[in-house]
Amino acid sequence: MTQTIDAASTTRTPDERATAWFSSFEAALRGRDVAAAADHFATTSFWRDLVAFTWNISTVEDRDGVAARLGETLDRTDPRDFVLAEPADEGDGVLTAWFDFETAVGRGRGLVRLREEDGRDRAWTFLTTLYELRGHEEPRGTRRPPGAVHGATKDRTTWLERRQDEAESLGSTEQPYVLVLGGGQGGIALGARLRQLGVPSLVIDKHPRPGDQWRNRYKSLCLHDPVWYDHLPYLKFPDNWPVFTPKDKVGDWLESYVKVMEVPYWSSTTATSATWSDETQEWTVEVEREGRPLTLRPKQLVLATGMSGKPNVPELPGQDVFRGDQHHSSAHPGPDAYRGKRCVVVGSNNSAFDICGALWESDADVTMVQRSSTHIVKSDSLMEHGLGDLYSERALAAGVTTEKADLIFASLPYRIMHEFQIPAYEAMAAKDADFYARLEASGFRHDWGDDGSGLFMKYLRRGSGYYIDVGAADLVADGDVKLAHGQVSHLTEDAVVLEDGTELPADLVVYATGYGSMNGWAADLISQDVADTVGKCWGLGSDTTKDPGPWEGEQRNMWKPTQQDGLWFHGGNLHQSRHYSLYLALQLKARQVGLDTPVAELQEVHHLA
Amino acid sequence: MTQTIDAASTTRTPDERATAWFSSFEAALRGRDVAAAADHFATTSFWRDLVAFTWNISTVEDRDGVAARLGETLDRTDPRDFVLAEPADEGDGVLTAWFDFETAVGRGRGLVRLREEDGRDRAWTFLTTLYELRGHEEPRGTRRPPGAVHGATKDRTTWLERRQDEAESLGSTEQPYVLVLGGGQGGIALGARLRQLGVPSLVIDKHPRPGDQWRNRYKSLCLHDPVWYDHLPYLKFPDNWPVFTPKDKVGDWLESYVKVMEVPYWSSTTATSATWSDETQEWTVEVEREGRPLTLRPKQLVLATGMSGKPNVPELPGQDVFRGDQHHSSAHPGPDAYRGKRCVVVGSNNSAFDICGALWESDADVTMVQRSSTHIVKSDSLMEHGLGDLYSERALAAGVTTEKADLIFASLPYRIMHEFQIPAYEAMAAKDADFYARLEASGFRHDWGDDGSGLFMKYLRRGSGYYIDVGAADLVADGDVKLAHGQVSHLTEDAVVLEDGTELPADLVVYATGYGSMNGWAADLISQDVADTVGKCWGLGSDTTKDPGPWEGEQRNMWKPTQQDGLWFHGGNLHQSRHYSLYLALQLKARQVGLDTPVAELQEVHHLA
Repeated sequence: MTQTIDAASTTRTPDERATAWFSSFEAALRGRDVAAAADHFATTSFWRDLVAFTWNISTVEDRDGVAARLGETLDRTDPRDFVLAEPADEGDGVLTAWFDFETAVGRGRGLVRLREEDGRDRAWTFLTTLYELRGHEEPRGTRRPPGAVHGATKDRTTWLERRQDEAESLGSTEQPYVLVLGGGQGGIALGARLRQLGVPSLVIDKHPRPGDQWRNRYKSLCLHDPVWYDHLPYLKFPDNWPVFTPKDKVGDWLESYVKVMEVPYWSSTTATSATWSDETQEWTVEVEREGRPLTLRPKQLVLATGMSGKPNVPELPGQDVFRGDQHHSSAHPGPDAYRGKRCVVVGSNNSAFDICGALWESDADVTMVQRSSTHIVKSDSLMEHGLGDLYSERALAAGVTTEKADLIFASLPYRIMHEFQIPAYEAMAAKDADFYARLEASGFRHDWGDDGSGLFMKYLRRGSGYYIDVGAADLVADGDVKLAHGQVSHLTEDAVVLEDGTELPADLVVYATGYGSMNGWAADLISQDVADTVGKCWGLGSDTTKDPGPWEGEQRNMWKPTQQDGLWFHGGNLHQSRHYSLYLALQLKARQVGLDTPVAELQEVHHLA
Repeated sequence: MTQTIDAASTTRTPDERATAWFSSFEAALRGRDVAAAADHFATTSFWRDLVAFTWNISTVEDRDGVAARLGETLDRTDPRDFVLAEPADEGDGVLTAWFDFETAVGRGRGLVRLREEDGRDRAWTFLTTLYELRGHEEPRGTRRPPGAVHGATKDRTTWLERRQDEAESLGSTEQPYVLVLGGGQGGIALGARLRQLGVPSLVIDKHPRPGDQWRNRYKSLCLHDPVWYDHLPYLKFPDNWPVFTPKDKVGDWLESYVKVMEVPYWSSTTATSATWSDETQEWTVEVEREGRPLTLRPKQLVLATGMSGKPNVPELPGQDVFRGDQHHSSAHPGPDAYRGKRCVVVGSNNSAFDICGALWESDADVTMVQRSSTHIVKSDSLMEHGLGDLYSERALAAGVTTEKADLIFASLPYRIMHEFQIPAYEAMAAKDADFYARLEASGFRHDWGDDGSGLFMKYLRRGSGYYIDVGAADLVADGDVKLAHGQVSHLTEDAVVLEDGTELPADLVVYATGYGSMNGWAADLISQDVADTVGKCWGLGSDTTKDPGPWEGEQRNMWKPTQQDGLWFHGGNLHQSRHYSLYLALQLKARQVGLDTPVAELQEVHHLA
C-alpha cells in the first residue's frame, strides 16, 4: 500500500493525494490506531487545534506529540468524515488542502500541508478548528430567524417588546451566564458571538457609549492595521471603508455594531470586585451601573479589558513637584492644548510616535525619550510584504476571504512562524534602506526583533517594541522631533531629567510607557492570588526580550481555559478579536449547555506577570 | 456570413454564439449602421436602457424601436468594448449572456437573451445599464480612501473635524447640489450613493431620528418582503438578519446605516415650500430645522417622501360627530389602546389586514369593510414561487447575488412581465386552493389582478390592491375578523354606516384607504401647476384597474427626468430604493459635473394624478 502511494505521488493530482491521505488517516483514527495515525505526520510536524479535539487552544509537535494528543483525545472526539472542502493545491513541494470534518459534538474545518517524506505524503502542519456545535448551530443563512411569526396569536409580543423585556430582566431577574468585562472590539465581538449562540451574556463597559474606548484616544489616532484585517464577525465593513480607519469612525462602527447585532451591553458600568465560589461555581461581581450598585452572578467571567489596556505608569521622583501636565499615553487628549509648548514623550513605540507626530503638527516643541531600541516598519511596506497575501484587495481578488485568511494565519505554527516572517522583513529592509539609514544617522536605535523576525512576532511575543510608521518616523530622522536617550531619573518643577543628567525642559510629559499583563486586571478586580494563579497573559515563551521561556506553544491564557475556573481572557487587535472570539464563544457555549469539556494541556504558569 | 452563423448555431457553445452576436452587433454600432444593428434584434424584442444610452429609464420595442433609439443616441453614446462578463448560458431555446461595455462617458453592464429567428441569433430582450461614470468612479475596493494620511503635516485635520466642518457648512456656507426630501429607505439609499459619488447632498426628514418612519408605524408591522430582497446599497444585512424584519429593527438599521455611510441627514426638518427659478436654474426651498427657519438653494430636488406616503383620507359626513378615535392607517398607533373595543377598519389591503390582525390579537372586536376586491397570496407561497429564484438562500447558493438578481429583474420587460408572473400565481392558486376556497366561502372578494398576473404586477401598476398574507387572512376566512362589504356612507356618533344601511358600531375607525400619487407631494410643496406639469407618478399605463393607458413602458416619473427641470421622484420598496437609486444618483452626478445629458423620450404626461 505504501509502495502504491509512493509510486503514484508524483503523477496523482493534488486532490487525489490529499484524498488518499485523509482516507488513510481517517481509517487509522476510526481504528483508534494512534501510532498509525501519528505516522501520517512528518518527523518535524505541528498539529494546532482550536477547540475541536482539545477544548483548548493548543499545539503539539512531531509524531510523539501527535500520538500523545490523540491518545488523550481520540476516543472522546471521535473525529470522522474528513472531506476536502475545495480542490487541493500544490506548490514548492507542499500540498495544501482545506478540509471539513465532524466530531462527536460538532463540525470542524482545517488546513493541512503535506510534504513527501520517506516516499509518503505526510502532514507537516495540521490545523483543526471547531466552528459549530451540533444542535447549537447559529441562526444564520438558511437557519436565520423568521422575524415575523406568521399566523394570528392572541397577545403577541413584538421584537421591540421582547428586546425591552430582555433588557429589563438581564442582570435582575435573569443572570447572565457570561459576564464580559470591557466593551471594546474584543468584548463586542465576543458578545455578538455569544448572542448568536444563545448564551445569556452581558458586556459591561465604563464608557458612556460603545466606541468611546476609541473616541477618547488622542485625536490623530487611526488604526495602523488595514481594513481587510479588521472586520468584526458577521458584519464586514462596506467596501468604501478607509484602509486605516480614523478612531472616531471606529467608535461609530462599534456603536452601530452593538445595536445591529443586538449585543447585550451596559454602558457607564464598572465592575468593582469579583469573587469566585468553588461551592456555587459562580462569580459574585459587584458593579456600578450609572452610579447604582448591583450584584451580578455569572458562571463565566471574561476579562476583555484590553491586552494593551492596563497602563504602565512609571513612578518617578519629582512627579509631585512637576508643574506641567503629565499623563500616560492612554490618557493623552491630543495636541490642541500644547501648541507652542515644550513636550517630552517618554517612550519610542507606536503611541509615542503617534503623539510626537500630532504634537509636532500642532507646533509644539517635542522631544522623544528613547529608553530602548524600537522596531519600525513603514506602513505601506508592511501592507505589501507583511499582510498583502492574506488581507488586501489583492488577496480578495485571489479568493482569500477574511475567513480563509484567518485560518491560513492560524495554521502557521508559532514555533516556526518567525521563519516565515524573516524574509518579509528582509524585503522591507531592502526596500526602505534609505529610510533606515537616515533614521539610524539621527541616532535612533532601531532593531528588527531578536531574531530579525520583525513586527508581528514582537506583537505576539511581547505586544510592544515597534512602530508602524505612518509618517512620524521621518520627524525623528529629520530632527523635527528631538531625540534623547536613556532612562528618566526624575522630574523637576519644569523639566524631565535623564539618568545621564540631561535636562529636558517640559510643559507636558507623556508616559508612552506601555501596558502590563492582563492578569493585572484580575489582581485589581479579583485578587492578587487569582492573578498569580493564572499567571502572565500573552506571549509565547519564545525566550526573546520580554517573552521569557519556556516555550509554551500558544499565547498564554488567551481565549482558553486558565488555572482559575470560570475566568477567561480575551483581547488583542481586531483580527484576533474577530477570529479567536469564535473559539472562546464555543468553549463558553459548550459549558453553558453542559457538554463534557475535558481540557487537554491546561495552561501552565511559569511567570506571574 | 449570415449563412455561417446559421449553420453553426446549434453546434457552437453558448459563449461562442454570444460572442459572435456581440462582435457582429458591435461592428454595426461602430459603423454607425443603425439598420444592421437593429437587425440583431428579434421581430418582437425589447431594449431596456437604464441611463447608459438614453440618460433616462426607457424601453423601446422591436426593430423599429431599436433603430429609432439608436438613431437618436448612437453617436453620442459611442458604445463599445462589449465583452461577456461570465460564461453564457443556454436553456429552453434562450441564450442568456451577461456583458460589460463602455460608453463615451462611462461603463455599463447588461443582460441579453438571444433566440434563434430566421436562422440567426437575435436579441429578444436587451438590458443596458450604466454603473459608473469614467473619471467619477466610486471610492470603493481598490479605490477606497486611505483614511490615515501618512506623513507629517502641520495643522492636520482629523476625520472627525472634517465631518464636523462639513456638518456646519452644509446648508449655510455650502449649498447642497441635491436636496432629498424624505429620509426613509429611499432617501437614505440615494443619500449614500450621492455621498459615494461626491455629490454635495442633503437628506432632510421630519422625524427626530432616521428610522422613525418605520418605528412610528403600528407595532406589529414587519416587512412583508424577505431579507434577500431588502438590502440597501453597499452594506448588506448580516446573515443572521431575520427573513421578515420587524419595523423597529428596520428603524435601527436605517439609523446605523446613515451614520456608517456618512449620509448628510437632517432630522426634525420639514420643507415648507419650494420654488424653481428658470433664471438661476435652482430651487429655493424653505425649511424648518428643529423649528428654525432656513432657506436652501439646491440645483436638484428629489421627492423621496414615499410612493405610499401621501395618505388618502376619505371625507365622510359625520366624521365631525363621531366620538371615537379615527385616523388613517399610516397614523394607527397599534392595538394597545383598543382592547375590548369595537374597531372598524375601512379597506382590505395590506395595512387593513395587518391592523385587523393586531387588533384581534389584542382582543378587540374587529370588522373589516371591503370596498373592492383584493388579491391575497400567502407569504411563504410568494417566497417560493414569486421571489425564490432571485432573492433567497437558494438563489445565493446558485450564484444569484442581490446585484445579479436586481439586473435579472430589471431585464424582464414590463410589457411582457405579466406573462412571466401568471404561471407563478397559477402555481400559488393550486398550492393554496383550500385557503382560497375558505376565504371565498367567507364572502371575501378575491382577485388575481385583471389578467391573473398577481401581486407584483399590481404593485407596479397601481401600488395597491393586495395583501401578502402572514396570518390575518385566516381571521377573515374563519370569521374572527368580521367582514362587511360596500362603500361607507357616513359616520354617526358611534358607528360607521355603509351605503346599504348596514350600521357598524365603532369606538375606532381606521381608514386603510391607501395613498395618492407622489405628485401630490409636489402640489403641496411646490404648486399644483408643477404637480400637473409632471403628472401622475407610478404605474405603467397597463390599462388595468387604477393604471390607465396609454402604455408608457416604464414606471411614470420614477427615478428619471420629469417635465419639471430639477425635480425627481424616488421611492418604492427596499429593492427599488436600492437598485434604482444607482441610476438616479448617476443622472444627478452627471449633471453636477456638467456632462451633456440629452434625455431620450422625456416622460409624457397623460394623467394628472
